[in-house]
Amino acid sequence: MQKTVRPIRTGEEYIESLRGRNLKVYLFGELVKEPVDHPIIRPSINAVAKTYDLAVEEEDLASAKSSITGERVNRFLHIAESAQDVVLQNKMQRKLGQLTGTCFQRCVGMDALNSLHSTTFEMDEKHGTKYHKRLLEFIKMVQHENVVIGGAMTDVKGDRSKGPTEQEDPDMFLHIVDRDDKGVYISGAKAHQTGCINSHWMIVMPAIRLTEKDKDYAIVGCIPVDAPGITYIYGRQSCDTRSMEPGDMDQGNSQFSGQEAMVIFDRAFIPNELIFMDGEYEFASMLIERFTCYHRRSYVCKTGVGDVLIGAAASIADYNGIPNVSHIKDKLVEMTHLNETIYGTGIASSYQSHKMKSGVWQNDDMLANVCKHNVTRFPYQIGRFAQDIAGGLMVTLPSEAEFRSPETGPLLKKYLKARKGVDVENKMRILRLIENMTMGRNAVGYLTESMHGAGSPQAQRIQIARIMQLGYKKKLAKDLAKVQEKGEETLENADYFKRVFKLDNSKE
Amino acid sequence: MQKTVRPIRTGEEYIESLRGRNLKVYLFGELVKEPVDHPIIRPSINAVAKTYDLAVEEEDLASAKSSITGERVNRFLHIAESAQDVVLQNKMQRKLGQLTGTCFQRCVGMDALNSLHSTTFEMDEKHGTKYHKRLLEFIKMVQHENVVIGGAMTDVKGDRSKGPTEQEDPDMFLHIVDRDDKGVYISGAKAHQTGCINSHWMIVMPAIRLTEKDKDYAIVGCIPVDAPGITYIYGRQSCDTRSMEPGDMDQGNSQFSGQEAMVIFDRAFIPNELIFMDGEYEFASMLIERFTCYHRRSYVCKTGVGDVLIGAAASIADYNGIPNVSHIKDKLVEMTHLNETIYGTGIASSYQSHKMKSGVWQNDDMLANVCKHNVTRFPYQIGRFAQDIAGGLMVTLPSEAEFRSPETGPLLKKYLKARKGVDVENKMRILRLIENMTMGRNAVGYLTESMHGAGSPQAQRIQIARIMQLGYKKKLAKDLAKVQEKGEETLENADYFKRVFKLDNSKE
Amino acid sequence: MQKTVRPIRTGEEYIESLRGRNLKVYLFGELVKEPVDHPIIRPSINAVAKTYDLAVEEEDLASAKSSITGERVNRFLHIAESAQDVVLQNKMQRKLGQLTGTCFQRCVGMDALNSLHSTTFEMDEKHGTKYHKRLLEFIKMVQHENVVIGGAMTDVKGDRSKGPTEQEDPDMFLHIVDRDDKGVYISGAKAHQTGCINSHWMIVMPAIRLTEKDKDYAIVGCIPVDAPGITYIYGRQSCDTRSMEPGDMDQGNSQFSGQEAMVIFDRAFIPNELIFMDGEYEFASMLIERFTCYHRRSYVCKTGVGDVLIGAAASIADYNGIPNVSHIKDKLVEMTHLNETIYGTGIASSYQSHKMKSGVWQNDDMLANVCKHNVTRFPYQIGRFAQDIAGGLMVTLPSEAEFRSPETGPLLKKYLKARKGVDVENKMRILRLIENMTMGRNAVGYLTESMHGAGSPQAQRIQIARIMQLGYKKKLAKDLAKVQEKGEETLENADYFKRVFKLDNSKE
Amino acid sequence: MQKTVRPIRTGEEYIESLRGRNLKVYLFGELVKEPVDHPIIRPSINAVAKTYDLAVEEEDLASAKSSITGERVNRFLHIAESAQDVVLQNKMQRKLGQLTGTCFQRCVGMDALNSLHSTTFEMDEKHGTKYHKRLLEFIKMVQHENVVIGGAMTDVKGDRSKGPTEQEDPDMFLHIVDRDDKGVYISGAKAHQTGCINSHWMIVMPAIRLTEKDKDYAIVGCIPVDAPGITYIYGRQSCDTRSMEPGDMDQGNSQFSGQEAMVIFDRAFIPNELIFMDGEYEFASMLIERFTCYHRRSYVCKTGVGDVLIGAAASIADYNGIPNVSHIKDKLVEMTHLNETIYGTGIASSYQSHKMKSGVWQNDDMLANVCKHNVTRFPYQIGRFAQDIAGGLMVTLPSEAEFRSPETGPLLKKYLKARKGVDVENKMRILRLIENMTMGRNAVGYLTESMHGAGSPQAQRIQIARIMQLGYKKKLAKDLAKVQEKGEETLENADYFKRVFKLDNSKE
Repeated sequence: MQKTVRPIRTGEEYIESLRGRNLKVYLFGELVKEPVDHPIIRPSINAVAKTYDLAVEEEDLASAKSSITGERVNRFLHIAESAQDVVLQNKMQRKLGQLTGTCFQRCVGMDALNSLHSTTFEMDEKHGTKYHKRLLEFIKMVQHENVVIGGAMTDVKGDRSKGPTEQEDPDMFLHIVDRDDKGVYISGAKAHQTGCINSHWMIVMPAIRLTEKDKDYAIVGCIPVDAPGITYIYGRQSCDTRSMEPGDMDQGNSQFSGQEAMVIFDRAFIPNELIFMDGEYEFASMLIERFTCYHRRSYVCKTGVGDVLIGAAASIADYNGIPNVSHIKDKLVEMTHLNETIYGTGIASSYQSHKMKSGVWQNDDMLANVCKHNVTRFPYQIGRFAQDIAGGLMVTLPSEAEFRSPETGPLLKKYLKARKGVDVENKMRILRLIENMTMGRNAVGYLTESMHGAGSPQAQRIQIARIMQLGYKKKLAKDLAKVQEKGEETLENADYFKRVFKLDNSKE
Repeated sequence: MQKTVRPIRTGEEYIESLRGRNLKVYLFGELVKEPVDHPIIRPSINAVAKTYDLAVEEEDLASAKSSITGERVNRFLHIAESAQDVVLQNKMQRKLGQLTGTCFQRCVGMDALNSLHSTTFEMDEKHGTKYHKRLLEFIKMVQHENVVIGGAMTDVKGDRSKGPTEQEDPDMFLHIVDRDDKGVYISGAKAHQTGCINSHWMIVMPAIRLTEKDKDYAIVGCIPVDAPGITYIYGRQSCDTRSMEPGDMDQGNSQFSGQEAMVIFDRAFIPNELIFMDGEYEFASMLIERFTCYHRRSYVCKTGVGDVLIGAAASIADYNGIPNVSHIKDKLVEMTHLNETIYGTGIASSYQSHKMKSGVWQNDDMLANVCKHNVTRFPYQIGRFAQDIAGGLMVTLPSEAEFRSPETGPLLKKYLKARKGVDVENKMRILRLIENMTMGRNAVGYLTESMHGAGSPQAQRIQIARIMQLGYKKKLAKDLAKVQEKGEETLENADYFKRVFKLDNSKE
Repeated sequence: MQKTVRPIRTGEEYIESLRGRNLKVYLFGELVKEPVDHPIIRPSINAVAKTYDLAVEEEDLASAKSSITGERVNRFLHIAESAQDVVLQNKMQRKLGQLTGTCFQRCVGMDALNSLHSTTFEMDEKHGTKYHKRLLEFIKMVQHENVVIGGAMTDVKGDRSKGPTEQEDPDMFLHIVDRDDKGVYISGAKAHQTGCINSHWMIVMPAIRLTEKDKDYAIVGCIPVDAPGITYIYGRQSCDTRSMEPGDMDQGNSQFSGQEAMVIFDRAFIPNELIFMDGEYEFASMLIERFTCYHRRSYVCKTGVGDVLIGAAASIADYNGIPNVSHIKDKLVEMTHLNETIYGTGIASSYQSHKMKSGVWQNDDMLANVCKHNVTRFPYQIGRFAQDIAGGLMVTLPSEAEFRSPETGPLLKKYLKARKGVDVENKMRILRLIENMTMGRNAVGYLTESMHGAGSPQAQRIQIARIMQLGYKKKLAKDLAKVQEKGEETLENADYFKRVFKLDNSKE
Repeated sequence: MQKTVRPIRTGEEYIESLRGRNLKVYLFGELVKEPVDHPIIRPSINAVAKTYDLAVEEEDLASAKSSITGERVNRFLHIAESAQDVVLQNKMQRKLGQLTGTCFQRCVGMDALNSLHSTTFEMDEKHGTKYHKRLLEFIKMVQHENVVIGGAMTDVKGDRSKGPTEQEDPDMFLHIVDRDDKGVYISGAKAHQTGCINSHWMIVMPAIRLTEKDKDYAIVGCIPVDAPGITYIYGRQSCDTRSMEPGDMDQGNSQFSGQEAMVIFDRAFIPNELIFMDGEYEFASMLIERFTCYHRRSYVCKTGVGDVLIGAAASIADYNGIPNVSHIKDKLVEMTHLNETIYGTGIASSYQSHKMKSGVWQNDDMLANVCKHNVTRFPYQIGRFAQDIAGGLMVTLPSEAEFRSPETGPLLKKYLKARKGVDVENKMRILRLIENMTMGRNAVGYLTESMHGAGSPQAQRIQIARIMQLGYKKKLAKDLAKVQEKGEETLENADYFKRVFKLDNSKE
């Protein structure tokens, strides 16, 4: 990685830090010279930059005092030292959602570091390895340098009915293909990686439960994003090329967007000191469960994005002169109700955190899944209501070029007038923002990513099924119904109700 | 009120304390001799008794150290001294929902005392009155004696398009009809009062915003439930008379139920030292808002009831030999998801509490409304899934008499067999429990009360509309859409987002 | 069967025809002397009687000219001779739902006769049997005598993971236990049989797909309801005993209700001339599919019941003085929208009927399942809206005895007043009707029966899955996406789209 | 209009007929030389062309014998002569939705001609005008020439709280600005006009209820699309410029799309013989109601589009090797259930048609609104399920350029492999089709147009409220509850239940 001034402080410094890297990024079949200057990529970089600026502007919200370095560090690099710390992740996420209207791409890294904290600790405990110490060294360094950590998890998977070693092509899951005394060489590909090109480091992790024969796939390690052997193929987003058009209206949100790419590893190298799992296959599922537990509740960010969309819908209703019509108001109430339901379930999950052996705090599993499951549903409903309020013009609006044209511009200014005092340009801008968030670039983040990120709906249902403690509930019912049975219900291992009835969730 | 041993300690002592009161209760047109011994009333008394027993069995959950008396007191009588205290109300409510499968009737009193704590303080601050001190004396007494406080709010209302003084009959809302130097005399009626007959004291409060001409209606005070001039007319519940039938199967939940009655006041007397508002009409809405804020989140109790119903559905699926059929499992997951969504929004509301001037902690208004609004929806869905899983037998099952009969009993035992090893009686009991909770006595509490208690759905929507801060959200949207307007959005007075972005919700 | 005047013409004559039968009906553990006079049973008889009266009052709607007898016959006994005939079944069902507010119990018989018409024809075609001719004789007789035919299908099933012959007790499914040259003897039990006690004849049919070893279970035949060896155990309904109380208010709908009972056969005899299937196991699934196809669309009756509930909700809103409040009106619109969605899908199914080989018209399978699937959902939503509009008083209303009492009656009249001009008794009656339909006796029919009758929700989903022609749809998608594949999609056997694109649905 | 060979027979001839017109179309601020050759416009022309080809390929479905000309004419130009004709419109619409996966733009014209048929007849009846005869002449001509008729309705509206004459600018609604003895001159603008550029003629109509002072706005007439004074500004669609990119994969559906434009009239001329309303303001609402009645049920086309999307989802599930996973199958069933619910309500509306005075058949109003109201909901749900099944790759898929590139193409072919035997290109194509239909060009038609076309959701609710006959329903409820009231419920004028209980819907 190219050396730049460290620690990075502001969004601007962050953007500068991305220049001149050795990245191999393809977009529309061509190698991108400098991602920072590419009009399609730049909005996603701006979104990450906002995470730096917020840490300056609202220090207590977006940074934290780290007991690892003793310094105040960006909260995305912080290891949660209390339930309150976990809650504050959510609050920061909502704020950034509000400020960018999109995915700011840093939660995977945050959630990966936190879940590795406890998992490496317990791996060492069992195997006498040194992963936890290595991880702490790494965290110390990144907290100090204030860099961006991406996490690469989802393998391309090939035939989904088959495991890693059963695939025709062993590269369908990332794995170790070689090793020497300095480290390991990995090959494979990770699909739809969020913000990887905008990161400085990438943590690779397995994404499925592994068995003994999958040992080579049980690799967790950290690698600079521009290491030799890594290729990025940029994903297309709905309406992505509008970012290459002149003007800034038709983009809707011209400044911010998300980013997803496919990352291909071809014998990429991870040095020993950056390896945090190497063959301990039985810990893969622990790591994944803890990561997804954090990550499913990280989707509280979407409530911040939801705030923007509710605001946009309220604005267009206002422009059209109908903000107090009862069915409009009722829809805004429903949008708010749904949005806050997501927020409430997320906050409750963070609040019901508990301390792990390693000292990090882990949020509640059941409520994290419930939160994410609501996220797979409610943004679609909120988006639908926004389209309802916006009216059909949202999808039939002429282009900005028309608005600027001497022939058609005056026609639009005449005929797109709304209630008195409303500027037609502003009306068009708000409509484009709603289009952007429900069909365009940021619909990718607000809708489809809400569906599939951190696990598709079915993944949450499977996890809820595992921990819903039916035995405990059946006993409640049988007691009230006066059912007496010889073989009494056994309580399952799940401990959700222990957390529910815990007397002080801020205590260990 | 009849004197009994005080403090009351156990459920049993509580039940004894109810005997021999001077209550005028009508049921089926007849005066009830002793409510404690009436088979229709008794299950509702048992439910309240459970709140005493829990305080003994799980002391930390269901009682608290009161700084008012310095004693450990039942949590239903405790003034919340921290956000954690508010959270623990929810946890206790869920537990009692699990143990009784019904409404245990004490939340109104708890929420009334807590909302009066801050409101009387602020009334005194403005008017130089002494209500807060009186209230503290009252609280001291009841905390020590450990008695049950009911709250009477909902007036019968008459013509709903008219206010208290516009009604043809002034008694449509409870009001002062006379006063002397000892106190005031009140007349009027309160509809569907929960658990009033099972209380020792009743706090009367207005239930709507009042204006200057409504001064006589601005009365808050406390009165023994058996004071002269009070008449109770017991409300019918679906399947209520099954409690009078022999046997205990057809009731479904023979031990516990809720209770609602109409309470009529005919010149009932409140002494001065028990008056907590007398004419300060402008504080009526403050009191109501704070009360409903607590109370809408108190409906977390329904998640405990939901746990029972999920358990019952899982039991019957098990008896039928189909617990692992995918659509059955999926429905149990959905029921759990909905139930925990209620819980999460409630806990988040309690967690986002803040300290009032008087020292009491008040939960978050937005999330309380969101919680209750989910309660008006999800129990109906959970109930529907339970009926789906239960199968039609739930509503075509022959009576217990049949099961006990020498003619038809053997036929039922032969033909209602399910999977091997399942006792037909147990299967019938679980089906009756599901009937009880979705159509019978406890459907009143689990469904209809979830709809209308603490305000019907529209009441929550109105409150959400008031505090949803559209100005703030419109600004977010306009900033991202690059809308520049002269008249910038003004931020409304609502302070939900201040609480959302508060750094430490356990601090003042 | 006891001889009475035939043909039966009016509801009154019908009721008389039920007297003095040799029925063995148990209710609350006791043998019922005369069902016609039992206050719990009578309302269900009244509902059936209405099907006679309607045929007199609206002859064209509720009767039809039969080409079998050449006479005008009750439509419930008519074999559909055109798509229009099938549509008219729906229209009559809606009307009867409106007039009774409950289940009038005759659809099973109608749908059984119609499905047997085509199935016996095709059985004879294959096996050279004489079932169709026998059936026609039987139809001729019942059309002429104008009697009620019930259908008995749902076996008690025992362990649901096992087939008829795998059960420990062979009687878990109805089967032939003996035969002589006159006929066959059957044993077993049918669960939750609708209106069986109110019928003159009962047609027994298998309810699951059968295999060769299940030959003894492949029995279809007709039997008088009071034949020796038949025992009925009456099912309890929510609030059933209110029908035994004095007065007629607390019942909500005192005149009409449904009826379900368990029917036990102990060597009951079916003579040869009334046997319509005897061992042809491979036709069991054809019969079931055709029957459920008719029957799933017969649930259009619930839209008539829904009309009543919408009317009740509108009435109470009116009494409360709030019929024009926007959220109330909006809920009435939503209730109507859902109710008419059921109607529309049902009518479309009937309209897309096609002529079978035997000459009878069979409705569309896909749309019948879609109709019923909506029925498993929307009445619950309509019921919930009705409770929302009704307010909490619906479940806390004192008893009629209170209203009639000299002590409490005047209090109720004073305090339950609504807007001027509304009689308190009428308000109470409407509230009790809503209780009746959402929690009480008729909630059994409107809600739970809507869920489970004619197959539980999953049964419809399985059938939709079988006929949804994914191959056809995949081809559409691939053509548009320009996908070229060697192994082209094969079109499945299902012929839904043939019916969709049929040019004239009134033609063969 | 330029003269080309008439009658037009095939899609190809139709496309040729569009060349060389005098159209003034702006797109991206520039005048379009030849719309037929513009890559963004062409797919919408192809969709219309399909309506010609279908009339050749499936003559009975997509054409009809007209009693006006005695010829077989395209069904889009046919005046419905029976209920069956109305039903066949729906069937043709579904088929075209299946074949194009988008909006084929001809329903407005068809529905306009049919609603004008009855309205002009009744105008003449009252006013002694000659509109109906003129209309018949026009229909004769277009049926013979086989041209495309567009309908222009939705005015730009300006301040929505104000009527036409109250606007600051009188042009906010289309109106007559001048007239001479040859005809009238009109000015104003129509927003989001579907397929207007692809039509030969455009019928202008008012879109709101008019009063006496709005006489100049009460103008209905027909005008060639390239008449002097007409300007078109093309609307942008999500991902529209992908149609200008090389290749055909990233478009998803490269061949077909919809089209919406703003149409500005600046003193455009309508000759007397093409005027069908001129000042008869009181008939504006009749025309609108009849038009929307047809048009709201015309959205059955979306079920054809839904078939494509279901097919696409099934295809991708198949490619991923998981077509039989239970939750996938269950989602496909739910998509089908929702899609067929739309179809059923539409068909039922068409089936319940009745004959108007003029001889044309008009479909059922209630069911048409119910159908459209379902259309505003279910496609969003179906789209969400499609995204669920598709997986995240749908929004992170690299571009076709990548697939064709020698550097990254092989990487994609290696890493995007699915189950054995699946071509990566085909998988990409299906994913792009799903993107196209849920976020891209055809999401405009499938989702947003489903919301707003033929009236936004609230418009249907208002209409349902008007015709839901609460008086009739209240009477049903009161009869069952034994409510006796002096002022009996009056039955409203609405006649929905007359149609419901009509004995033969194929008769007048």
